[in-house]
Amino acid sequence: MPALPLIIDCDPGVDDAIALLLALASPEFNLLGITTVAGNVPLALTEKNARKICQLAGRTEIGVYAGCPRPLMRPLVTAEHVHGSTGLEGADLPEPTLPLRSQHAVNFLIEQLTQAQQPITVAALGPLTNIAVALIQQPQILVNLKELVIMGGAVTQGNVTPSAEFNFYVDPHAAKVVFESGAKLTLISLDVTHQALTTPERLAEIRAIACPVCQAAADLLTYYGVADALNHGLPGAPLHDPCVIAYLLNADLFTGQAAAVAIETQSQLTLGRSVVDFLPGVAQAANATVLQTIDAARFYQLLTDRLSTYR
Amino acid sequence: MPALPLIIDCDPGVDDAIALLLALASPEFNLLGITTVAGNVPLALTEKNARKICQLAGRTEIGVYAGCPRPLMRPLVTAEHVHGSTGLEGADLPEPTLPLRSQHAVNFLIEQLTQAQQPITVAALGPLTNIAVALIQQPQILVNLKELVIMGGAVTQGNVTPSAEFNFYVDPHAAKVVFESGAKLTLISLDVTHQALTTPERLAEIRAIACPVCQAAADLLTYYGVADALNHGLPGAPLHDPCVIAYLLNADLFTGQAAAVAIETQSQLTLGRSVVDFLPGVAQAANATVLQTIDAARFYQLLTDRLSTYR
Amino acid sequence: MPALPLIIDCDPGVDDAIALLLALASPEFNLLGITTVAGNVPLALTEKNARKICQLAGRTEIGVYAGCPRPLMRPLVTAEHVHGSTGLEGADLPEPTLPLRSQHAVNFLIEQLTQAQQPITVAALGPLTNIAVALIQQPQILVNLKELVIMGGAVTQGNVTPSAEFNFYVDPHAAKVVFESGAKLTLISLDVTHQALTTPERLAEIRAIACPVCQAAADLLTYYGVADALNHGLPGAPLHDPCVIAYLLNADLFTGQAAAVAIETQSQLTLGRSVVDFLPGVAQAANATVLQTIDAARFYQLLTDRLSTYR
Amino acid sequence: MPALPLIIDCDPGVDDAIALLLALASPEFNLLGITTVAGNVPLALTEKNARKICQLAGRTEIGVYAGCPRPLMRPLVTAEHVHGSTGLEGADLPEPTLPLRSQHAVNFLIEQLTQAQQPITVAALGPLTNIAVALIQQPQILVNLKELVIMGGAVTQGNVTPSAEFNFYVDPHAAKVVFESGAKLTLISLDVTHQALTTPERLAEIRAIACPVCQAAADLLTYYGVADALNHGLPGAPLHDPCVIAYLLNADLFTGQAAAVAIETQSQLTLGRSVVDFLPGVAQAANATVLQTIDAARFYQLLTDRLSTYR
Repeated sequence: MPALPLIIDCDPGVDDAIALLLALASPEFNLLGITTVAGNVPLALTEKNARKICQLAGRTEIGVYAGCPRPLMRPLVTAEHVHGSTGLEGADLPEPTLPLRSQHAVNFLIEQLTQAQQPITVAALGPLTNIAVALIQQPQILVNLKELVIMGGAVTQGNVTPSAEFNFYVDPHAAKVVFESGAKLTLISLDVTHQALTTPERLAEIRAIACPVCQAAADLLTYYGVADALNHGLPGAPLHDPCVIAYLLNADLFTGQAAAVAIETQSQLTLGRSVVDFLPGVAQAANATVLQTIDAARFYQLLTDRLSTYR
Repeated sequence: MPALPLIIDCDPGVDDAIALLLALASPEFNLLGITTVAGNVPLALTEKNARKICQLAGRTEIGVYAGCPRPLMRPLVTAEHVHGSTGLEGADLPEPTLPLRSQHAVNFLIEQLTQAQQPITVAALGPLTNIAVALIQQPQILVNLKELVIMGGAVTQGNVTPSAEFNFYVDPHAAKVVFESGAKLTLISLDVTHQALTTPERLAEIRAIACPVCQAAADLLTYYGVADALNHGLPGAPLHDPCVIAYLLNADLFTGQAAAVAIETQSQLTLGRSVVDFLPGVAQAANATVLQTIDAARFYQLLTDRLSTYR
Repeated sequence: MPALPLIIDCDPGVDDAIALLLALASPEFNLLGITTVAGNVPLALTEKNARKICQLAGRTEIGVYAGCPRPLMRPLVTAEHVHGSTGLEGADLPEPTLPLRSQHAVNFLIEQLTQAQQPITVAALGPLTNIAVALIQQPQILVNLKELVIMGGAVTQGNVTPSAEFNFYVDPHAAKVVFESGAKLTLISLDVTHQALTTPERLAEIRAIACPVCQAAADLLTYYGVADALNHGLPGAPLHDPCVIAYLLNADLFTGQAAAVAIETQSQLTLGRSVVDFLPGVAQAANATVLQTIDAARFYQLLTDRLSTYR
Repeated sequence: MPALPLIIDCDPGVDDAIALLLALASPEFNLLGITTVAGNVPLALTEKNARKICQLAGRTEIGVYAGCPRPLMRPLVTAEHVHGSTGLEGADLPEPTLPLRSQHAVNFLIEQLTQAQQPITVAALGPLTNIAVALIQQPQILVNLKELVIMGGAVTQGNVTPSAEFNFYVDPHAAKVVFESGAKLTLISLDVTHQALTTPERLAEIRAIACPVCQAAADLLTYYGVADALNHGLPGAPLHDPCVIAYLLNADLFTGQAAAVAIETQSQLTLGRSVVDFLPGVAQAANATVLQTIDAARFYQLLTDRLSTYR
């Protein structure tokens, strides 16, 4: 089976970093490039952090592209309380020598998707700004977009507000553009990622692997999301973004269901909520596969196995 | 301990009817009157149904007052698919001889609450129109309003839309008025009532009681909410409104927590959603006790015990 | 021609006071009562001010009824910068001996309109709270409501915000209820009342009339709206509310046109705007007659003539 | 005085076409390129129409760039009833031999504005999609953006709805992005352009000029906006877009005032309204110069003079 052509759009961020390490350790992917966006931290940090992770993984041939420094319609909101002021708190990674590519992430996405010989999968780990702008500029990119797998949203309770999850709260308008685009969408919401917690046991297994990459991953995860977990009364931090990569590696770890997903942009109170209708009707047809469960044990096993290959 | 002065505002509806039967069988209450509102069925039916239930319970001295025939701002939405075209599908109750009182429900509420010698508790089982209008006309009714216990809203998923529960969907503006009023509020949402399902075993226990009232209750509950339960994949229909009466009889059946509750009125997509923040902050202080669990076994035991007193 | 049965719902306020004086001097009306609402000043002042004006006019037999102390959904906004802290700045009128009627204004409106032998006209000079609440409680009052003539709204530019006029800004939800009610509506907006300015010449003519009522009127109008006029670059203050009474006395002073009027309640930016479509279509039919011009010279002549009868 | 570096962003459309002819006849401008957007007609027509006009004017060296085929958040709305099915109804212009440039309009705008040796003025004659997307992708383009002169919005009454003018109605979100961007903005709204009507006399003067370009212009203007003018009861069609070019040629033809302009995106009823506050306060500072009057006689004189140079 040939490797899956993949672009990862992200805002590293610790869980993005783990997702990148997982993807970079997986021969199943033909990683065409990494695009970054403002989100967990400002753009200047997300693009630098993506380069730091590529370098940590020894994959300096990967192109990293900086995208939009702001959401479509709202001022940028960031999450340093979760990821630290650098976005990669906990690990002291060297300044990357890997250069930032000069092309804008939106142009890279459009160019790849319009010139593709075969359909491309996009993993969206941050606010959907880059992807929405690409869709607005050049809607025909849909033709070669095989699948867009998104970490974002919440079926039940949000994490930034009772209504909204962080990625969709940061750029609800971009999320709305994407969910109305007609693209083949798979959504991994908080309802799934809150089943994939970084418990002390799971952290210990990663730390036990004798390699610098794994030590860095363990360092990052030790800091990551402590305050968030406490806030929500969880026994560990939800490892959001790696779920997307795991899904692309082994969809059998998940269950899900077709649903009609709409994004709230009209009200301040519920701004950014992903309204998920599992009983879609005539008025609103299903526009996404919404995942509902993850086999967390096997997910962490997969993650640990792949991180071990950095030894 | 003296009986609790109580007014029940409702829109019978099958579960309202069971709630009334439970309340009318409970000497703990001094039931000052029953006010009705348009909701599950139109006003002309809810007031008649309230009278039918009083008559069934042999309590023809209770005053029944008709209130608002429409929500504050929206066209009326009803739920005949749950309660049948009469609102009391399944039982063939005689036309009531008990007359409707001529006073408007809103005026009854205002009069009782402004002239009360002791604080009055109000159980709100339907859309909050009557109570909101009373608060708009005469805000000082708050002084004698001991507690308003509300069945409505959803912390996670709604039942009319993914966002909204029926009572708050029918009159979201009234719910907003009530939650911004400063009244002492206790909220019993779908998250609680979906723990209190009418399983076949529970229905069988009610039907086994040898009395006409219990047979009528069993008949009503056999029809009630079948379609709704199927829709939501539940093993029985949620017995929403009796939870309010059970809470007033024995709060120990429930757990709950102070929270900041806001009602969505700005967006069509999420209209009527009760946004519940269990981590209320400076910006939005707690304004309600939001119940979270019910001991369903003991709740049904209480209901069955009290219905048995009609023998 | 028999006198027109009339109820005036108002929030005096200086221009309301002049409107009342005009109405009380006009034998064309059978004034059934005056209902007041919170608006220009709080309810406790608007009801007292209505009584002061009745007493000034020597009409202590008129019933004055206090209504809602707050808008349907929003905190009360008042306009002391236009009307002074008492609402009747400029004239020092004695405390009224005329008592406030005990019936709530909403109940008075409902009682009159449901028991009327002949259709009743209502002049609405303030926020539409009382009338909206009456419509919500008892929609059948429409049957005997001959016409509702409203001062409110703006076709072009508002006066509280660029979008909204004061009365509709204070209670946009009430305005929406009224404009969706199906009542026969006539709207006198800022676009008309800004043609009816209290120029120095016009004030001088009123002051020249030798009677205490006219001196009080002149005193009130000398203070009234000075700041507002300056703000909007007008050569005098717009005499809003008396236009409604003048219209009922002589509709020929005005021109107007059928239009579809909708009230903005969804957006903070344009809250309370009256969206007037003079080209109503299939989707939105005409629901009001929207006046467009006033013959200001004849209007002031009418006002001066009638005030003269207080000599 | 050196020529003004200018980019025209437009959606021809008849009035855009006249604006282009006016600009192309004016040596005061150094026209760097023409970018087009979906608006009056779909993108495939607006870019072709821009090339047709360049060719008609004999200016085949001008670069024409196609931009976004859709608004940021909404389905495209077009105006064939005003401009005809081709967008240039009335004149039969040959298919252009001038090729479309391959660069996307957004990228052209970003490249020009980031690499500019001197500040660039942008004339925005259509929906603001291209400019908003450029601002989202690369906010630093503001540094070299000398002034953005916009045809759009309405201070009083709209033309698509009572609230909104066409360009802002088509893409209200883009307008909001632009008005919140901090760019130096000049707004020419319907309140100005409805003072610049194509009366029969003015049309006759253009037709009287003996040259093919002027004949084509007269042909276009004869058809243009007839239905619109009738609808709004005007003696001619408002020549919206050329006002922007005229302003850049001679600002003395206009008067205006600093104001705070906000764009409505939250409510369906007032969607796309430009809320103009001429009394900006602390909460909302002035962010634009809003023009209020045009000397229509001199404007048409300027237009006729410049069109004459095509002889």
